[in-house]
Amino acid sequence: MVNYVSILIKNGTVTNDDHQCKSDVLIIDGKIKDVGLNLVAPAGVQVVDATDKLVIPGGIDPHTHFQLPFMGTVAVDDFNIGTQAAVSGGTTFVIDFVIPTKGQSLLEAYDQWRSWADPKVNHDYGLHVAITWWGEQVSREMEILVKERGVSSFKVFMAYKNAFMVNDEEMYHIFKRCKELGALAQVHAENGDLVLEGQKKILAMGITGPEGHELSRPEELEAEATNRAITIANSVNTPVYIVHVMSKGAAEVIRHHRGKGHRVFGEPIAAGLGVDGQQCWNHDWRHAAAYVMGPPIRPDPTTKEYLMDMLATGDLHCVGTDNCTFCADQKAMGKDDFTRIPNGVNGVEDRMSIVWEKGVNTGKLTACDFVRVTSTAAAKIFNVYPQKGRIAIGCDGDVVLWDPKATKTISAATHHHAVDFNIFEGMKVTGLADTTIVAGKIVWSNNKLQTVQGSGKYIESTAFGHPFLGIETRDIARNELLFKVEREPYTGPVIDLSKK
Amino acid sequence: MVNYVSILIKNGTVTNDDHQCKSDVLIIDGKIKDVGLNLVAPAGVQVVDATDKLVIPGGIDPHTHFQLPFMGTVAVDDFNIGTQAAVSGGTTFVIDFVIPTKGQSLLEAYDQWRSWADPKVNHDYGLHVAITWWGEQVSREMEILVKERGVSSFKVFMAYKNAFMVNDEEMYHIFKRCKELGALAQVHAENGDLVLEGQKKILAMGITGPEGHELSRPEELEAEATNRAITIANSVNTPVYIVHVMSKGAAEVIRHHRGKGHRVFGEPIAAGLGVDGQQCWNHDWRHAAAYVMGPPIRPDPTTKEYLMDMLATGDLHCVGTDNCTFCADQKAMGKDDFTRIPNGVNGVEDRMSIVWEKGVNTGKLTACDFVRVTSTAAAKIFNVYPQKGRIAIGCDGDVVLWDPKATKTISAATHHHAVDFNIFEGMKVTGLADTTIVAGKIVWSNNKLQTVQGSGKYIESTAFGHPFLGIETRDIARNELLFKVEREPYTGPVIDLSKK
Amino acid sequence: MVNYVSILIKNGTVTNDDHQCKSDVLIIDGKIKDVGLNLVAPAGVQVVDATDKLVIPGGIDPHTHFQLPFMGTVAVDDFNIGTQAAVSGGTTFVIDFVIPTKGQSLLEAYDQWRSWADPKVNHDYGLHVAITWWGEQVSREMEILVKERGVSSFKVFMAYKNAFMVNDEEMYHIFKRCKELGALAQVHAENGDLVLEGQKKILAMGITGPEGHELSRPEELEAEATNRAITIANSVNTPVYIVHVMSKGAAEVIRHHRGKGHRVFGEPIAAGLGVDGQQCWNHDWRHAAAYVMGPPIRPDPTTKEYLMDMLATGDLHCVGTDNCTFCADQKAMGKDDFTRIPNGVNGVEDRMSIVWEKGVNTGKLTACDFVRVTSTAAAKIFNVYPQKGRIAIGCDGDVVLWDPKATKTISAATHHHAVDFNIFEGMKVTGLADTTIVAGKIVWSNNKLQTVQGSGKYIESTAFGHPFLGIETRDIARNELLFKVEREPYTGPVIDLSKK
Amino acid sequence: MVNYVSILIKNGTVTNDDHQCKSDVLIIDGKIKDVGLNLVAPAGVQVVDATDKLVIPGGIDPHTHFQLPFMGTVAVDDFNIGTQAAVSGGTTFVIDFVIPTKGQSLLEAYDQWRSWADPKVNHDYGLHVAITWWGEQVSREMEILVKERGVSSFKVFMAYKNAFMVNDEEMYHIFKRCKELGALAQVHAENGDLVLEGQKKILAMGITGPEGHELSRPEELEAEATNRAITIANSVNTPVYIVHVMSKGAAEVIRHHRGKGHRVFGEPIAAGLGVDGQQCWNHDWRHAAAYVMGPPIRPDPTTKEYLMDMLATGDLHCVGTDNCTFCADQKAMGKDDFTRIPNGVNGVEDRMSIVWEKGVNTGKLTACDFVRVTSTAAAKIFNVYPQKGRIAIGCDGDVVLWDPKATKTISAATHHHAVDFNIFEGMKVTGLADTTIVAGKIVWSNNKLQTVQGSGKYIESTAFGHPFLGIETRDIARNELLFKVEREPYTGPVIDLSKK
Repeated sequence: MVNYVSILIKNGTVTNDDHQCKSDVLIIDGKIKDVGLNLVAPAGVQVVDATDKLVIPGGIDPHTHFQLPFMGTVAVDDFNIGTQAAVSGGTTFVIDFVIPTKGQSLLEAYDQWRSWADPKVNHDYGLHVAITWWGEQVSREMEILVKERGVSSFKVFMAYKNAFMVNDEEMYHIFKRCKELGALAQVHAENGDLVLEGQKKILAMGITGPEGHELSRPEELEAEATNRAITIANSVNTPVYIVHVMSKGAAEVIRHHRGKGHRVFGEPIAAGLGVDGQQCWNHDWRHAAAYVMGPPIRPDPTTKEYLMDMLATGDLHCVGTDNCTFCADQKAMGKDDFTRIPNGVNGVEDRMSIVWEKGVNTGKLTACDFVRVTSTAAAKIFNVYPQKGRIAIGCDGDVVLWDPKATKTISAATHHHAVDFNIFEGMKVTGLADTTIVAGKIVWSNNKLQTVQGSGKYIESTAFGHPFLGIETRDIARNELLFKVEREPYTGPVIDLSKK
Repeated sequence: MVNYVSILIKNGTVTNDDHQCKSDVLIIDGKIKDVGLNLVAPAGVQVVDATDKLVIPGGIDPHTHFQLPFMGTVAVDDFNIGTQAAVSGGTTFVIDFVIPTKGQSLLEAYDQWRSWADPKVNHDYGLHVAITWWGEQVSREMEILVKERGVSSFKVFMAYKNAFMVNDEEMYHIFKRCKELGALAQVHAENGDLVLEGQKKILAMGITGPEGHELSRPEELEAEATNRAITIANSVNTPVYIVHVMSKGAAEVIRHHRGKGHRVFGEPIAAGLGVDGQQCWNHDWRHAAAYVMGPPIRPDPTTKEYLMDMLATGDLHCVGTDNCTFCADQKAMGKDDFTRIPNGVNGVEDRMSIVWEKGVNTGKLTACDFVRVTSTAAAKIFNVYPQKGRIAIGCDGDVVLWDPKATKTISAATHHHAVDFNIFEGMKVTGLADTTIVAGKIVWSNNKLQTVQGSGKYIESTAFGHPFLGIETRDIARNELLFKVEREPYTGPVIDLSKK
Repeated sequence: MVNYVSILIKNGTVTNDDHQCKSDVLIIDGKIKDVGLNLVAPAGVQVVDATDKLVIPGGIDPHTHFQLPFMGTVAVDDFNIGTQAAVSGGTTFVIDFVIPTKGQSLLEAYDQWRSWADPKVNHDYGLHVAITWWGEQVSREMEILVKERGVSSFKVFMAYKNAFMVNDEEMYHIFKRCKELGALAQVHAENGDLVLEGQKKILAMGITGPEGHELSRPEELEAEATNRAITIANSVNTPVYIVHVMSKGAAEVIRHHRGKGHRVFGEPIAAGLGVDGQQCWNHDWRHAAAYVMGPPIRPDPTTKEYLMDMLATGDLHCVGTDNCTFCADQKAMGKDDFTRIPNGVNGVEDRMSIVWEKGVNTGKLTACDFVRVTSTAAAKIFNVYPQKGRIAIGCDGDVVLWDPKATKTISAATHHHAVDFNIFEGMKVTGLADTTIVAGKIVWSNNKLQTVQGSGKYIESTAFGHPFLGIETRDIARNELLFKVEREPYTGPVIDLSKK
Repeated sequence: MVNYVSILIKNGTVTNDDHQCKSDVLIIDGKIKDVGLNLVAPAGVQVVDATDKLVIPGGIDPHTHFQLPFMGTVAVDDFNIGTQAAVSGGTTFVIDFVIPTKGQSLLEAYDQWRSWADPKVNHDYGLHVAITWWGEQVSREMEILVKERGVSSFKVFMAYKNAFMVNDEEMYHIFKRCKELGALAQVHAENGDLVLEGQKKILAMGITGPEGHELSRPEELEAEATNRAITIANSVNTPVYIVHVMSKGAAEVIRHHRGKGHRVFGEPIAAGLGVDGQQCWNHDWRHAAAYVMGPPIRPDPTTKEYLMDMLATGDLHCVGTDNCTFCADQKAMGKDDFTRIPNGVNGVEDRMSIVWEKGVNTGKLTACDFVRVTSTAAAKIFNVYPQKGRIAIGCDGDVVLWDPKATKTISAATHHHAVDFNIFEGMKVTGLADTTIVAGKIVWSNNKLQTVQGSGKYIESTAFGHPFLGIETRDIARNELLFKVEREPYTGPVIDLSKK
């Protein structure tokens, strides 16, 4: 069997996060072999014309939940369908989350996820692991995951009380462990105590529909938890990454702390950049329920623009999706109680077009910024750079020919997800993945998939990556401020409490 | 026995928080009977000349801990000495804290405090009660305290883990109870988990001296907890009062939330306005230890000015002291371990001169602002206004003749406290209480005390005071946003989990 | 002739800016004679029942332009109609603007305004004077106005280039003069250079309708000028008052500077609190044009709420109207060119109901806050307090019985203005002036006016009022920082430029 | 003559702004030929060992004034000495300023600068041109400079009234012209009117020494002008670059605007990052005068850290120096009047070590950040990237071997400047340029210079560089908001002014 895994891309505008220029790109055996003008195709190498296209590093979605078991059901986009949807939108690398149940071995859960993903993925992928409980075993297994399994990021939940939620003390210890191991701490930031009280209150008011979701957990709860998480991480002096930044309030908190020199990264998601949460007030229950995710997509319609502005300044970093899709019959588990609606939305397919449409077409982002926030920043933060996230000699041959003028109207009728609803339904976007190349092979072109199930690889990420640069110096500099005052001992009287 | 309890103050400049004008003030039987020009003294009424003096409402210190039992010892300023120190500085009303131990009956603790205070106080006083645990009994006793004992403010501690600290869930329920009762929630805001971890860390570094105190609980921990407390209070929609705001970070948080319309009040204290925490780095242990209190006085020397600016804008409200004094032999309990130094500093005597010196003499505050932050605001917030905090017909005859030109140098050698150290030692202040009048009787003049132990009264505060104005409307307005969407029921398929 | 100018108001809730309580109010000969429970009416005194009403100090509108000559035409609300509209809404004092043309004598203009107003006003009034040019004569006349004419506030325009606009250097000198005289500097803050360029640009794009007005002078231009004005005033150390704060951007600037301790006051207006500027995009030209004023009412619909929040915090101070009304045929002068539409809207009648509806009914303001922002703050800032702005013995008998439950729908069909349009048309408001009393005489009750033209008086305001409190101390404190370093003279070589 | 212009750098850690890795670097004929592990030196190529060194792109100083004629004298660092000092500190490219006098032809001035620089420079350089007056000729010459002379950045002065200062209207037109040409607008931001008034005031107070410099132009004046400049640039929608950001206030303004999506760049300088302005209060006149520059180095000692934090977040961009040196006898022209002290300080030699010491050694910056702020960002902004500012195949062979452990104590006794004072005198820095390579030739190693006068080239910068990316899209997006409302014409009556 002959697969083209070598390819020459001619006449495109190579666009990295730092620079754009006209260049050809030669990929041999899955790796970029040359970048330059007037490259000549070796014999047998497929030639693709990229005139009027941007040639960009394949997109990276740092936040997916393919085939996640949740509330007794399972997310319908599995690792096959999910990665097909990804490449059809220009994404060639995702990082999914292993989520152990409370008390479960982290290694066992990790193995489970590998067994689900490896046979199915159509492109490379990586894994984060959630820490949903704390103890000696967890601490030991974190080390094994980092040193032997290529995991270098761990997520904690500040919400989902009585399920995944950890308290401040546990979070402190988990962050300390992350720091020792050189692993990035990730946080789902919502005040879980207040979410629970809010749910009780809203249900007690007789509000049981999807609109109750956001009403019970308004953005103040997200902002508060974000602030707390960063404060704890900073007291440990370890970098922290806030997943799914959904609100202006949370983004402002991140910006505030960054201004103080705290090492914090923020991830908005396609849903939060593309739509607003007023959809949950739709009169069609099915429509409204489709937008339920946590933290909620905020009803404030200016949130989208603000989050995009923060990507432009660099206060937010990379765009994920939290892709976790449930069909109407699954969402319907919560038809009489919004707290029982499985949380999750689509995004992995449309992410890049959403960012182009809302970011580049509005003048908020440049094409270089686009590459940064959809690919390069994630590669750096999760330490697979420059293997991923850059077009340069030696990098992986995951490349997209981006057509900035092509348009489509997003629809569930045509998308590549398994789910029966698309939260961006009807949105016209300009800027599409014309051709997607994975490891030198075209897997998407002419609106057709040519993927091969299981052809992707699990990519190990090593510890002490980009987010840890300088952390050690920072420790030294901080410790210099924690000096002991040398004093004569106090020799005066001391009260004798026993004689009172 | 004949005591002058009637008095005519002539030729002064009556200064309330809203206005200044030349006026005489007549006090008969302990109440202000008239305010106006050219008042004539009835027979037998003492006449005092106030030329070149401001005639201001007696100061109110909303935060004292007289004779507080703490760590096995007892604060040395008792209710007699403490209130003597108060009037010598121009303060004629204090609000002290009842602090029940975990599990103790609130009523029992309240009775204890009354029994300590009533025979000793030299001027009127009120009481806050701390809530250090949570349960049905506490809830019931809160009601009795509010409805039958004149208590309308309750404080929680977010620090002192394993002692007074309550967690977020408890805080939520305490705040809800406060709201039902119309009582003001007060908060000691520091992240108790991080304080404990910080103490372990600093001690482990071999830092055992007083400088370790602040190093183990830097201002980020105060700012975080302040933000969390306000978020929780706002989710309940009840007003919240942050005691001892010690840092720029915490003050900024308060200002931020006030800008969002949240109902929050902030109290800086004399120590935080007058000195900085670099004193804890002093090479004399005794000196350094004398400044240990929680939250710490911050080493950033610009903190003082910032807090004063926030009093000027109205983002902070009233100046307390947290007066809780321990002598060197008591502080020495922590001579080898800063965590064992009893926390507390003086302030009740010097508070008003500190505010005048640092606020009015710098042009940050006007004389009217001075009255507001030292007296009127506290009277409103703790609902004893206009009985206290204003010079007008019908108000209590607690009046001070303030001499804006008089100066002194503060010193433990001359102060009226029982404690053997003064944190303002050596500071020259311009602006002093020339004469202090309590219930129409001169208790301080010519640098002499003429107080009568036990002559003060416990003043009941009624619930639903100034901080609760409009809270009900706010509930209505908010609830209008929490409306239910009327929908056709979802009639589609629902996944059958049993069939999986 | 018998006029009731004495009156006893029974059973109301007296509401000042600092306090609410049940009280009767007795007004004799136009002045408040007594405030207290169970007052008895002297013989011949009219008794009014105020059960369920708030008894508040009459409203003060610090910003009106009655019968202003502008662009060849004249504002249709003259001093008679304007003050009738005022009392029907609960306002009993206005401060209008004398606006000399460039080169005109200030005194001459002042006399002109007095001659227009005195015979017509139905309640008391005061005058600000605009400084539209600079020179020795202006400087001298400012002094006469302050010392002999009762003027203590002067306004400059940073917009209207080639007409009223002054440049930075002139503004600096005018502010210095204000400071010397103890007069408050007021500023219309928009960058006049950019406004002019914006107008050229928008007209060149073919946009000639009312929507072009805001497009040509977006809020950044207001924010910039506000920042510049405050910087200049602060460099002089004189208080500054920003008239018609119309945007979030400008309000944020004011809040920012107040946090730094700068002495700045901000005035939102009824239009900005009640509606948004999207009205200028209305397809009916007449409707759209009716909302044209400068600075523009902003299209951002959240501006209203933000400005109200800033009134709640005290970062903005008093609510004006800029009432300056032109009928459709006058507005039509700009039917083909938005720059020729006479700027101005109504407000003086509806101001207080707008503030109650948008402020109190939303829970943002308390009833005391309402009194502060509609009356007391203006009285203090423009130094007519406590004669105006307070209910207390000795104050003027300008009192309103405010019915917090009464409702009406605002309409040009029923308003008391001369103008043929009402920018609040169709808005239902709850909270109305039930009865308005001017100098002890009922002038509005049962929806009927009983005013007497010319019965109002011009009220002189004296210099060095409330905004100047402590300014002198501030000068001293600042000058202490401007000390000269004592040095040995430099004795080294000095380059000889002639020898080069 | 044989010059090594080819070189192989072995065993170093190549550090670009995005990534660090072990790599050799081969430079042939002045260009980087290869980057990779285990490169083999072609015959005749010099090999340099870089073990334990970072191999970084040569530093870029975007702000120098070599041999500037000023106030009748000339800055003593000429283009030879200045560029020698540069390479000794690791800088291999500077951008100097052509400053025409008012009325002078821009082209003439440009030619003058070229004639001074070309024969002397020891490394490549570029030129900005100042616009000190406005008119048709200036507009035409700007075009020629951009299209035919390789200039793509123009600076305006908002200070130096009556000399270089332009007013707001002129600035608007200059910015528009910059935009048309694709040239970057640069701004010296201080309010020139207030500076002049401040100078008069301070001199009138008898303060004539160097401390008067900052007292007469405090940071509020810089912040104000910065805000105004950005507002004007944003109204034109052209990128703007603020030179020498010296204060927290100005940096906050930049950060604020960046958060709103405005395209603004900020340049702190070595002086502002390394020292504070309290030096101007030194009792030795000569010492104090040495620190006089405009805008002043601020006395607030926390400014340095704040500016560095803003470089870390990316709110400020590249570090310049404003290197403009005058000896004591030149500074002495102002010995009796601080306004006559020639403004200027050194920096070009120590810039990179200052940034490493204050940025990297404090943990605020990573090594990659260091490269970004000292080199890469400037290369992008001034459009010489990736020719300059990156180590990659094809880039210029300007490379530095940076020794992060080497230390020195800065001193005028040992520096390579012509000036007789060093503002960093006595500062011990860790982190030095071990070896500096210009176009493949070692010009600095073993603390010895091996430069060749005149060997550097003038580098043309082309227009529409990095700062202009997406500006066109932004115009389109903005113009979409400036749409005309289609309306029926107004047909009602129009007032006839002639009939009044």
